[in-house]
Amino acid sequence: MSTTAAVSRQFKLAKRPIGMPNRSNWDEVSEAIREPGQGEVLVKVLYLSLDPAMRGWMNEGRSYIPPVKIGEVMRAGGVGRIIESKSPAHAVGDFVVGTLGVQEYATVPGTDVNRVDPLLAPLPVYLSVLGMPGMTAYFGLLDIGVPKPGETVVVSGAAGAVGLVVGQIAKIKGCRVVGIAGGAEKCAFIKDGLGFDAAIDYKAEELHVALRRECPKGIDIYFDNVGGDTLDECLARLAFHGRVIVCGAISQYNNTTPIKGPSNYLSLLVNRARMQGMVVFDYTPRFGEAVKDLARWMAEGKIKPREDIVAGLETFPETLLKLFKGENFGKLILKVADEAD
Amino acid sequence: MSTTAAVSRQFKLAKRPIGMPNRSNWDEVSEAIREPGQGEVLVKVLYLSLDPAMRGWMNEGRSYIPPVKIGEVMRAGGVGRIIESKSPAHAVGDFVVGTLGVQEYATVPGTDVNRVDPLLAPLPVYLSVLGMPGMTAYFGLLDIGVPKPGETVVVSGAAGAVGLVVGQIAKIKGCRVVGIAGGAEKCAFIKDGLGFDAAIDYKAEELHVALRRECPKGIDIYFDNVGGDTLDECLARLAFHGRVIVCGAISQYNNTTPIKGPSNYLSLLVNRARMQGMVVFDYTPRFGEAVKDLARWMAEGKIKPREDIVAGLETFPETLLKLFKGENFGKLILKVADEAD
Repeated sequence: MSTTAAVSRQFKLAKRPIGMPNRSNWDEVSEAIREPGQGEVLVKVLYLSLDPAMRGWMNEGRSYIPPVKIGEVMRAGGVGRIIESKSPAHAVGDFVVGTLGVQEYATVPGTDVNRVDPLLAPLPVYLSVLGMPGMTAYFGLLDIGVPKPGETVVVSGAAGAVGLVVGQIAKIKGCRVVGIAGGAEKCAFIKDGLGFDAAIDYKAEELHVALRRECPKGIDIYFDNVGGDTLDECLARLAFHGRVIVCGAISQYNNTTPIKGPSNYLSLLVNRARMQGMVVFDYTPRFGEAVKDLARWMAEGKIKPREDIVAGLETFPETLLKLFKGENFGKLILKVADEAD
Repeated sequence: MSTTAAVSRQFKLAKRPIGMPNRSNWDEVSEAIREPGQGEVLVKVLYLSLDPAMRGWMNEGRSYIPPVKIGEVMRAGGVGRIIESKSPAHAVGDFVVGTLGVQEYATVPGTDVNRVDPLLAPLPVYLSVLGMPGMTAYFGLLDIGVPKPGETVVVSGAAGAVGLVVGQIAKIKGCRVVGIAGGAEKCAFIKDGLGFDAAIDYKAEELHVALRRECPKGIDIYFDNVGGDTLDECLARLAFHGRVIVCGAISQYNNTTPIKGPSNYLSLLVNRARMQGMVVFDYTPRFGEAVKDLARWMAEGKIKPREDIVAGLETFPETLLKLFKGENFGKLILKVADEAD
């Protein structure tokens, strides 16, 4: 372990947040690095994925994955480099992706990380288009939404990690794609930069007016990343046999009051429509299929990744909040160390 | 037309209700009976179906069926006897079912009514198990819910027209069936009379406590007739890959405030579940299939119909309200005239 410091800085969950998290929810500590045991690897963390779902993991109670325990290192996906290996599957120098946690060094079972090729795609892309956000977009849109050419697809959080991939895949599938995002810059990016048919700046105009204009035949598929009023307005505009993919509800994650349920849910009845939830982990056995398609589409220039990279593990508590303030532009990633270090 | 009066009493929509309808929403008038033209039949109305959906038809605005116009005879399904026929398809004396309207006599195209056999089933059953409620239960549960043996099915409005058929079909399909109804009498009826596995009296105990007790493995299928808090509690108790059939929301139809959306809709995400709307009219081409099964199950004693028959066309405005007050017990039917008259 000559190439590493003997200690690893970490963010542990100190207490569960009520509403928006802040520094008091975290313990920033330095601990001695644990030597890898048989079958384990020691990974130097390079990039960490910051995701809306992390807010849910901070809560007590039953969900699709157990909550992070008090005193436990915060769960986070990441990319790193193996600096010590007692696993036959990995060699020192390999780049790997896996659940590494919000820390500088992770000692994990070799079977928990997967090798990635930095020549095939830049490392941060393994946390965006080729990572969980890309998988979520791919299986959510294609498996739950089942888009047909000519259909109208609306996606919220359209300049976010999942949304921008959803929109680009929907374009590939021949759909009319309408993205909802906050601010002129994000809207210009998804429309002019990514080729969405329309972009709605929800901060600049009434959503129901804009949806009526941009979705004259109604919404066949609504991919929901935000919940709240946006979900309600899209339900109101749903087309016959419409599909609503419930991927997330970032507008509601920091509520201190009960979640706002969609008042317009009876549109599901009127339109014989369905609203269905999805969790990306269910598709793990099929990730290879998605990676193959997404890598090809990137090579063909049909999908452009975009990351919003913030440097410094120490900025974690504040950087995470960018997601909930709508300040991230593309996939939010925390850079923990230089690749070459 | 010697066998009939020359005039027909009718209820026309006078003005659209805000909240619970009352007498002021109706014009009770007597009008000369219109002689049937070529292809038409004159039907003496015997029984009318009173349905929760009628409340929706009284509202302005887009739905799955156009609203009843102001000044128009209120739409209602019914059973009657043909007393004059200029349609080659029908003979005087035939019993028929169709959209007859809230009136004593209906002059309608012969193609709009279908003959029914009073020897096969009592006439009111053609408005209950063999009518729209039966069709709704059959296709909603089997096509949208897709129940598997051993699964837990919960139905609200369980002593109502649709609910009691849903529960009995679910029993036939080998499910554990839990009905939610209001009052000890209804609960005893669905449990002891119809063979549901459990009945929850929502007026007598906390729904979430009762659901936890009666659905220890969660709810695989929730057939929702009521919406509101009941929908929310069932969502909270949903099992992995659960299905929610949105059939109605009677608790919300007379709201003067916005409909209460289901706060717990993110349970769809956590449980990879779906919530789907249905409208029975979509299944018209397949009604024969349902009637065949339902008639056989009735003959075998596996499905018991139950009607709540109130006599007197003049009671229509008040009788309709029984639905919204939870006062009906079984399929609510207005008896307009005696079969033998």
